[in-house]
Amino acid sequence: MSDFLFYISQIPKNQIFDLSDDEAGHLRVIRPRIKQTIRLTDGQGNLLTAKITKITKRKITIEQIGIKFIEKPPKPYIHLALAPTKNLDRLEWLIEKCTEIGFNRLTFLFTQYTERKHLKTDRLRRKVISALKQSKQVWLPQVDDLTDFSEFLASTEAEQKFIAYVDTKNPTHLIQVVQPQKTYCLLIGPEGDFSPSELEEALEAGFQKVSLGKNRLRTETAGIVGCHILNLANLM
Amino acid sequence: MSDFLFYISQIPKNQIFDLSDDEAGHLRVIRPRIKQTIRLTDGQGNLLTAKITKITKRKITIEQIGIKFIEKPPKPYIHLALAPTKNLDRLEWLIEKCTEIGFNRLTFLFTQYTERKHLKTDRLRRKVISALKQSKQVWLPQVDDLTDFSEFLASTEAEQKFIAYVDTKNPTHLIQVVQPQKTYCLLIGPEGDFSPSELEEALEAGFQKVSLGKNRLRTETAGIVGCHILNLANLM
Repeated sequence: MSDFLFYISQIPKNQIFDLSDDEAGHLRVIRPRIKQTIRLTDGQGNLLTAKITKITKRKITIEQIGIKFIEKPPKPYIHLALAPTKNLDRLEWLIEKCTEIGFNRLTFLFTQYTERKHLKTDRLRRKVISALKQSKQVWLPQVDDLTDFSEFLASTEAEQKFIAYVDTKNPTHLIQVVQPQKTYCLLIGPEGDFSPSELEEALEAGFQKVSLGKNRLRTETAGIVGCHILNLANLM
Repeated sequence: MSDFLFYISQIPKNQIFDLSDDEAGHLRVIRPRIKQTIRLTDGQGNLLTAKITKITKRKITIEQIGIKFIEKPPKPYIHLALAPTKNLDRLEWLIEKCTEIGFNRLTFLFTQYTERKHLKTDRLRRKVISALKQSKQVWLPQVDDLTDFSEFLASTEAEQKFIAYVDTKNPTHLIQVVQPQKTYCLLIGPEGDFSPSELEEALEAGFQKVSLGKNRLRTETAGIVGCHILNLANLM
């Protein structure tokens, strides 16, 4: 059995089917052989075992051998909401690392100090898929488009709601207040942080102000660190 | 006072001195003005306050106003030792993120499965300096050259020594065994992990096998996550 995990957007009805061009390309990297067994996921909990039946220059055909469904635990549920960085590389990196570490949903926030007014999420979604495969998971995190800050506050229903905010007078660290087995929402501000009125609005909406550490962190570092703390809280 | 921190490799003897070309370049980005106050660090605990006295096309001259020494706590002391990735970008990210989060020393390991036989650390050291400034710290972490694995094991004297190793049969998580206020050394393997004989050698040298989470992490993600856990253990 190959140590690699491949992706299919949907489990086909047919026992025998062709891989997408993307996945066939990835598979060719590991020099596939006829009769070799591979594993695939649809990112919806299904783990498929299949055998390679045909390799041509244009297509790779596989045949399903077995399928297993892996239940998603309802909690912890980690929802990150983050103002996108100017630099797209940093966002791609953030999303790759958060997928490896583990999260459920990421919403990009349009805030007062957000410099980026548009965001194409296609490339970011592809990054999530490739990190999912690399870290061998079967549940694909959700990535939302750019959403207005106030609209987002009104819509979220997590049991624990946090806003990361640099405030030397009130340095309650996220690790000190997060409880295990909850649904979480964590807001991360843009390079210039949230505005004081946005902070006020979040506090009124039931968000709790937290610190992510003593040093000033870049937005994408804050995202990774926050995501990691929410994971760790469910291990201890 | 500007919100930025600049770097000088050494505190000059003279009250009045010129910034290096690099730092002058960084300062020009924020449109410096005569009489503006800036802060600089030498990465050795010194925080210098200075006034800009002269700006020409070639040079920026500053005058020292005050200097403050910030003691480095002897513990926690975080020493990461990691097999470098093939891809240099990933190492630069690792080092930037670990600097933001906080660490003391990074040694690159040459192991059985390390694909990279040579490593130029100059560029990585510059990344550390720029992340130090960005995260406003005054103690520069140390970056060592590529070191042979066995040689390294014999030389390290940390109070708590860990080796991250993917082992489903023994998943003791680092967060469960790390104690606060210690000196730490954490080994992170290459893409193909440490070899069984290297693991054996590390265990004999007093290293404890630990997991960094349920998912398979890339080398650089493991480095960041491990560094973050060692920081968090000193907060809780």
